[in-house]
Amino acid sequence: MTVSDPRLDDLPGYSGGRFPAACNSRTVLDHVTSKWGVLVLLTLSAGSLRWGELRRTIEGISEKMLAQTLRTLEADGFVLREAQAVIPPRVDYSLTERGRELADRLIPLMGWIADNADEIVDGGMRQRA
Amino acid sequence: MTVSDPRLDDLPGYSGGRFPAACNSRTVLDHVTSKWGVLVLLTLSAGSLRWGELRRTIEGISEKMLAQTLRTLEADGFVLREAQAVIPPRVDYSLTERGRELADRLIPLMGWIADNADEIVDGGMRQRA
Repeated sequence: MTVSDPRLDDLPGYSGGRFPAACNSRTVLDHVTSKWGVLVLLTLSAGSLRWGELRRTIEGISEKMLAQTLRTLEADGFVLREAQAVIPPRVDYSLTERGRELADRLIPLMGWIADNADEIVDGGMRQRA
Repeated sequence: MTVSDPRLDDLPGYSGGRFPAACNSRTVLDHVTSKWGVLVLLTLSAGSLRWGELRRTIEGISEKMLAQTLRTLEADGFVLREAQAVIPPRVDYSLTERGRELADRLIPLMGWIADNADEIVDGGMRQRA
């Protein structure tokens, strides 16, 4: 059963009376909004960074989660991984053109969140007190 | 240890040489980009909807996850819950002004994802084949 409501028709990703569970939009949305996806994309929007720089910039990310997030974002074509032929070995990560387009949509979202987060969280705490 | 890199300084949420793990921005980001947060906010951007309409529109969301997501978004002041004094009982959900501001930043992101998802996912599959 689906909802027939013309107000929904123009929403991006809405199709056939619903947001379908099995579709490419949902897959990519899940990758981008994974626990660490937004922060990795946002950090790389500053420019090319090394593994250790990413790890230290995004406080709290584990080596495993950073590796997994980078692998997913690389498979989606958002992130470019370049192993430099130097000693000691060094790997640089940067955004592709596609990753840059995506980051351009994430920065306004994160900007709004950063500007409003204190009021949102403090307001919620007052409400619960 | 933090990364001292002036390229990062202007990124939203970046503070003291890193994206801090314990801060209000991270909390709100986690709420918004939770597994179902984006889709609930996006759906409500169309207007006031009832529980069952939300449930049917967002294919795959369980009753438990819908309840939990709405509760979090309500506590953050993004969603307004209005129990109507009618028989049978009926509850309407809508975006607050704050929720609308947030949705205005999510719609361009979801629009870009919907426009590019097929190419992203199919490209990844060709690469792995």
